[in-house]
This record gives sequence, structure tokens and C-alpha cells, in this order.
Amino acid sequence: MQAAAVTLSLQKIRAAGIAEGSAKAMKQPANMEQNHPLFRQVYDYMVNRIVREEWKVHDKLPSIRMLAEELQVHRLTVFKAYRELASSGRVYVKDKSGYYVAPAGMLREEPTAEAAAGVPAYSLTNPMSDIQRMPVQYQFSQALIDPGLLPNLFLSDYVKKVFDLYPKVMGTYSSVQGDPELRSVLSRHYQEHYKLQLSPAELLITSGAQQAINLIAGLVLGPMDYVLVERPTYSVALDIFRRAGARLLPVTITPEGYDLEAVEELMRTCRPRMFYINPTHHNPTGHTVPARQRKLLVELAERYRCLLVEDDPFRDIYFGGVPPAPFFAYDTEGWVIYISSFSKYVAPGLRICAVACRHPFMERLITAKSMADNGSPLLNQKIFLHYYTSPRLQQHLGKLRIALQVHKEIMEEELAGSGWEWTAPEGGLNLWIKLPESVSAAALLQRSMEQSISFVPGELCDPLGEMTSWLRLSYSFASENVLREGMRKLMQLAREL
Amino acid sequence: MQAAAVTLSLQKIRAAGIAEGSAKAMKQPANMEQNHPLFRQVYDYMVNRIVREEWKVHDKLPSIRMLAEELQVHRLTVFKAYRELASSGRVYVKDKSGYYVAPAGMLREEPTAEAAAGVPAYSLTNPMSDIQRMPVQYQFSQALIDPGLLPNLFLSDYVKKVFDLYPKVMGTYSSVQGDPELRSVLSRHYQEHYKLQLSPAELLITSGAQQAINLIAGLVLGPMDYVLVERPTYSVALDIFRRAGARLLPVTITPEGYDLEAVEELMRTCRPRMFYINPTHHNPTGHTVPARQRKLLVELAERYRCLLVEDDPFRDIYFGGVPPAPFFAYDTEGWVIYISSFSKYVAPGLRICAVACRHPFMERLITAKSMADNGSPLLNQKIFLHYYTSPRLQQHLGKLRIALQVHKEIMEEELAGSGWEWTAPEGGLNLWIKLPESVSAAALLQRSMEQSISFVPGELCDPLGEMTSWLRLSYSFASENVLREGMRKLMQLAREL
Repeated sequence: MQAAAVTLSLQKIRAAGIAEGSAKAMKQPANMEQNHPLFRQVYDYMVNRIVREEWKVHDKLPSIRMLAEELQVHRLTVFKAYRELASSGRVYVKDKSGYYVAPAGMLREEPTAEAAAGVPAYSLTNPMSDIQRMPVQYQFSQALIDPGLLPNLFLSDYVKKVFDLYPKVMGTYSSVQGDPELRSVLSRHYQEHYKLQLSPAELLITSGAQQAINLIAGLVLGPMDYVLVERPTYSVALDIFRRAGARLLPVTITPEGYDLEAVEELMRTCRPRMFYINPTHHNPTGHTVPARQRKLLVELAERYRCLLVEDDPFRDIYFGGVPPAPFFAYDTEGWVIYISSFSKYVAPGLRICAVACRHPFMERLITAKSMADNGSPLLNQKIFLHYYTSPRLQQHLGKLRIALQVHKEIMEEELAGSGWEWTAPEGGLNLWIKLPESVSAAALLQRSMEQSISFVPGELCDPLGEMTSWLRLSYSFASENVLREGMRKLMQLAREL
Repeated sequence: MQAAAVTLSLQKIRAAGIAEGSAKAMKQPANMEQNHPLFRQVYDYMVNRIVREEWKVHDKLPSIRMLAEELQVHRLTVFKAYRELASSGRVYVKDKSGYYVAPAGMLREEPTAEAAAGVPAYSLTNPMSDIQRMPVQYQFSQALIDPGLLPNLFLSDYVKKVFDLYPKVMGTYSSVQGDPELRSVLSRHYQEHYKLQLSPAELLITSGAQQAINLIAGLVLGPMDYVLVERPTYSVALDIFRRAGARLLPVTITPEGYDLEAVEELMRTCRPRMFYINPTHHNPTGHTVPARQRKLLVELAERYRCLLVEDDPFRDIYFGGVPPAPFFAYDTEGWVIYISSFSKYVAPGLRICAVACRHPFMERLITAKSMADNGSPLLNQKIFLHYYTSPRLQQHLGKLRIALQVHKEIMEEELAGSGWEWTAPEGGLNLWIKLPESVSAAALLQRSMEQSISFVPGELCDPLGEMTSWLRLSYSFASENVLREGMRKLMQLAREL
């Protein structure tokens, strides 16, 4: 059903006939039909309810008319799904009376383990992590930083310090919300560096940004809810939202930011519950939403009561000027949630992330966190705390920016003259690249994985699953020599294709 | 809606008219009515859908008949809810035409933040963690081990060792499934100590048992699914299942285990998707399900395709003999999931837990974990690994068992002659106590919190929310003197009541 939701939503948008949105909207159903025709999605939905015995053997199924209304699809689509159910032996027909659930004996196909478990198929696959789980020699798919560039030795000193300071840290749980000492340090840091007015009570510590997104989605999104997402965006976030059964509304991000008229139109007509944004050195494009748009979008969010979930892991990884203040700085009514992960550039091994939001959402978030894992490990928070408060951090960051810029420039050098197109990012860890028409990212990925080179194909980052001629190359993980060598091999492969 | 589900489910059970279950089942609706009458639950459900604008202003609401069918409740219940909606100004009536959503102007009560967020109320409160968040002098509410009894110094040595062995551990993510080295050590340990045949590929590392329960519930339970739970049980698990919208079916646990006939009857009639069990030194009662029942229940689980989720954190905390082998040891078809947390007795600060299950469920669990937090921190896994493989662990465990038994006996001494009733546990961290009729646990808790003494009132552990004259006292956290002192104060308070 969730899978169906995406398509259904876009039909709604078409119905609403949004001038700007319609171009995109019109494209999707076609694309969706290819991957997973609508009647198939209805079929899966029915199978699911039958397997889970919401409809038991010999129960009468709802009429085609009723189901078509329930799912907001055309009756012919439901008819096609019912015909499919009948031919697979899942249901049987009594003339002039309707469709009934068939006993297992009539089954012509065994229900899969997934169907038996009632788990929608997409939640079983996470192509992103599949690609990233592959051990490769030239790692361009993970937006991680070369461990060689991280302050490993310093950190191990701090660890020893932590044990002297807190001999019982191993024996103690953290509070669910996170170590108070860490939260007060961070709230001060946000005030000084990001211009955010925050109390420690408005911060929650999570295990990475992904847990934060997952907790927020669990609280805010229900089946059929609309959620605005950037196009392209962080693919795992898309998986999380789909899994919650939400309907995705894509908003294109460009070097100039968003088309705010289109955003308002979507907020007005679809009443999305949230907008997931990564507006600073955006993943994957590297774009940064200009300051003037930030204030305006917060106003829209307040007017249409749409939460802005601002994911901001790359703020401190800038090559040019310091980026504009976070959206959260413009928030007056508590409609912005601010996620800042320090995993990337301090210590991925610690998985420390902070979520800033206002009462009463914070209370709900704390409860969700208490159910999810009852609080992040205290040890990690204390280690992070003592490193974070040391002058080492700023020194490390300064060096890291230079090192990453060098990485970026090496990658760009190797790309020069390839006919591949990208916008040089002002920060972050990735290049977002458009291939020439002649090259398909999927074909290139297949060949490159054989050569132990990985990258992220663009369609994974696209809520519409298109952008097949785009790819994301991370320049942050491979060391300089490996980077240069891998890029040359990749260019060679592309020429051969 | 979820809130309603529990009650609705029991109506269904009554309808099914289960001989043994019915006694319990008949009790609940009455009890539910007290806390949250059915029409109220329907009212909340409607308000929710209105606030979330699934029904927009001036939309016509479904007829009483249709909604009564949809929710499987009596029409009078829906009528009552509609009348309530009308009198609160949320809907208005057009004669002979039906109920319509009223514009905000007509509202006589402001929608709460919770309603506005569409979050069911119960998911906003976690009374257990509320009690435990209170800093008290006499801590009997947390089933945690006195940090003074944990091997803090040894662990800090191992930490230094870890940094020498893995200088880049801070800069590295763990694989989503968990550190392979740790998983192979654990699979060997399970074979030697628990008689479990496991490959490292059948283990997933999570951040505590609670995350494991939460991930499994997210994969297995959907709205209106049935789940079997022990009565009493771990209260946070109940919150997690309710939050998934599941319907709870209570199974009483006694020193003899479960009434397997009743369990089979529930499995046959309600087809629950899973049974959450804590069969060894059970929390809160301390009971251990006898070996002969374990094999039988696994057979039932296989016959009725009901997952057994075996939570087993207290296995190694025994005072008498070694407990019988886990249910997982009897599993042949992959219907048992085994959760063993080492947080409690090794290092709560590390939050290391292992989940054992078979293909294909493991693939789904890995994906869920990848979305939840993309893998537990590597540092914690490596620290744990090196301590766990050392002879220190068994030495520590031997001492710990003796220390905890002493704690238990101190608590029992202080309880002697109080007229409070309990079954002396063979292991674990708690006493499960029945108060004399004259004393109410709630009243006692209120008084004791004033005296800085905390414990868990029994009703929180009861899926039916009854057991108001029971309480859980944890003897594991307070040091011996604090334990004795606190118990004397508590007894004194009880006498005063």
C-alpha cells in the first residue's frame, strides 16, 4: 500500500492541477507504471490484507466501486487487480455476487516470506547500503571522511581522560535526552557559532542524524501523509518516509534554492506534514539555499503548519565563505527542527548527533527516543564532549577544510574534459554529476563495481526514481592517490561504454 | 485509533468466546471503560482525522452505520462520539443530512499540540521512564546493577588496548549488522554456554535490547495485529507494541510457566503475529519457564506461525542452578528470535545487545537497523569484544551473582513479617510483590517518592492496567546499606498508610 501511495499522491497533484508541479507530476505515473503498475500495487495491497487474514477465507471482498473510492484509483485499475487475484487463485468469483477469498488450496503461487510477514517489499531493500556494504578499492559512494584525516590519536588521549574523570562511565546509562553536560556545551556552541538561541532542554542527543530523521518521521508521518522532499535528496531519508507510508512531494533544489511559489502551492493544496531539507552544502548537489529564501520558507512553514526538518551535517565543511545561518535561526513558532550530526567530521565511530527543537515537540521526541533505545551510550557522549570543548577541534576543522578542498579539486581535475557536468560545490563531500546522454549511470556502475569502484547512481537520490543519467561521487573518503587513480579508471570505463 | 485497538480487540475475543480467555477478557473492557471509554476513543480518532485534515472543513463525515462497521463498535458508541464532537463544536449537524466538519471558529476547545501532531496520547507518556528519570536517594525502580559492582577499572584498561589495536576505530563506522569479529566471538560463546547453533551471519548487534524489540515490532506488527504478551511484563515493550497499533493478548505467567492450552486457543482464534516472552528470571516476577514447556511452545509457534520473541537479559544472573536452555535452542523453522543484552551486567554504558534469528528475517532486521541508525557505534563493540573474550568476564560474573544474591536476601529480610507476598526468585534483579488489600501501590508510590524512594507500580507492567496492589522492587541498584535503609523507610511508610 505504501508503495502505491507515492503514485496515488501524484494523481492527486495532477487533479489539483498545479501549474509548476504538473510538469514533474505528469512524468511520474508513467515512470511508476514501468517499475510497479498501479493495478499491481492494488494487487499487493489486497494480497497483504488476505495473507494477514484481515479478510479470511470465503470472506466477501469489498466491491470494485468501494475499493476504488477507498484507494482513490480508477475502477478499471481495481478490476484489473481483482482479475489478477482471481487468476493467481487468491480469490474466486461467484456470479452476480462478487469476489471471495479463496482457501489456500486454490493458490497457484506460494505467498513469499515478505508477503507472509506483511512487510512491503521496498522495506526489505536498501540499495544505498547494499552498494556501500561492498568492499571496494575506490570508495566514491560513501560520503565519509578518510579516517586518515580524523584526529584519531587526540581522541584516544581524550578517552583516557574520560576514564579518569568518570571512572564509572561504563556502568552508567545516559539520560534519555542525552548527557546534560554535553547539551549545555552544545547550546553554548550553537549560540556562538550558528546564532541559535537554545537552552540545553531544547537539545536531544541521538545516535547519528539518521536516527533523528527516523524518530521524527515516526512521530510526524502516518500512512498517506504528504511530505515535501528535495529533488534530489538523501536516499535513506526517502526510504524512511516511504516506510512510514507517507506520500512524497518532490521540490527541485538548484543553486538558487527552491521555487518557493511551487512550494507554497504544494503546502496549500496538499497540506504536507513536513519538509525534509538539507539546505547547506546539500547532499548530493552541494547547493546552499540563499539566506533570503530561508526566512521566507520559515514563514511559509508557519503559515501552513508544515514542520521544516533541517538536516545540517555539512555546515562546518565550507571551502569559500561561512554559509548563511540555519533556518532554525529564523524560527519563532517552533516549526523548525534542527539536526546537526558531528559524526562526519569529528568521529564517525562515536555516532553523536544533536537535535534542536522547541517544546512541546521535544517532549514527544524524548519519549520516542526512550522507546527506540532508551538513550545513546554515555561513554560516546563523554568522549565527544571532552574533545569538542578542546581547542583541538577548531584546529582540526581548519586542516580538514583544506584537505577536503584538495580532494575536491583533484576529482574536478580528473573530470575536466570528460563532458560530464557539475556545479562546483562551496562545501560538503560530494560532486553531483550529469553524464552525457550517451552514458547510463546504471551501466557505468555495473562496469565500475567490477573494477572495484563504487559511486551512488542518481536515481537513488531522486524521489521520482528518474535522473538515470546522474551520479554522486564522494571525494571525501579515498586518499589523494587512490582518488586520482580511481577517477582515471572510472573515466576510462566511461569512454569504453 | 491505536488506543482504541486494545479494547476493540477484546470485544473480538469475547465474540470468539474463548472459554479460558474469556474470564480475563470480560474483565478488561470494564477496566478500559474506566480509563478511556470506548466512545472517547472513537472521539479521539475522529478529532485526529479532522485535525490532520483527512476530513476538511464542511466535509460530510461517514454515516454512523459506516463508521461503526469500520471500527467494529456499536452504533450507539459512534453516536455518542458524534454527539460529543458536536457539543465540542468540532462538527455540526444538518437535519436529515448528517454530520459535517465545523470551521475552526466554532471550536469550543483548542486542539492540543498532541492532537495537532496526530500523535496518539499514550505515545506521549512513558510513565516508567518518568519515574526512573526522577533522581532519588533509594533507587528501587531501575533494574540496573550498582555501578560499584561493575568492572569499571578493567574496562578502562581494555579501552586503552582497543585504541592500540584499532587506532582508527573512532573514524570508522561499524557495518550495519555489527562488527564481524564481535559476532563470531558471540556465536562461539552461544554454542559453548547456551547450546545454540548459530553462525555470525545470524547475529545482529543493537544498542540495547529495547532497540531490538522496537525494530522487530516495526517489522512484524501493523495496526490491529494481535501480539501475545506475558502478564505482567516489561512495561516499555507494551508501550512499543501499543504504539505500533497492535492489539495486546495477555498470557499470565506463573512459577509453572504459561497455560499452554490458553495460549494455543489464542493462537488458533486470533492468529497473533508474535509472542513477546522473557522466560528466564522473568521481569518483573523472576519466574523461569520450565524446560518441558519450552519445546511445546516452540511447536505451537511453528504450527500457528507466531514469532516467539525471546528476551533473555537475566540468563547469567542466577542464584540457584543454571537455567534451562533458551527457546531458541528448540527452534527448527526460524520462528524464534533471541535477544540477549549484555548491557545489564557487563557495561550499561556500552549498550551492547545481540539479536539472533534465521534467514530471511535477519535480512529484514538488518535493513530496519540500517534505517534506524545505520549500525551501532564501533567503538563500543570493540571495547566490549575485548573484555568479553577475557577471563575477567567469568570471574566478574561469579562475584556479581553472589553480590546480587546478598542484595536480594537483604531486601527479603527487610520484607519479612510485613504481610507482603512474593515468590523468591532464582535469579534476576527484582522482587514482584503483592501488597495487602489495605495498601494501594499508587498511594504508596506517591508517599515514597516524597521520601526519595522509587519503585515500579504493578499496573505499569500489566497489559490490562490492573494489578494495582502489586509492585516491582529492584534490589540490584542500591548499595547494601542504602538498600537496607530505604527498605526500612518504605516499610514504615506502608505501616502509616
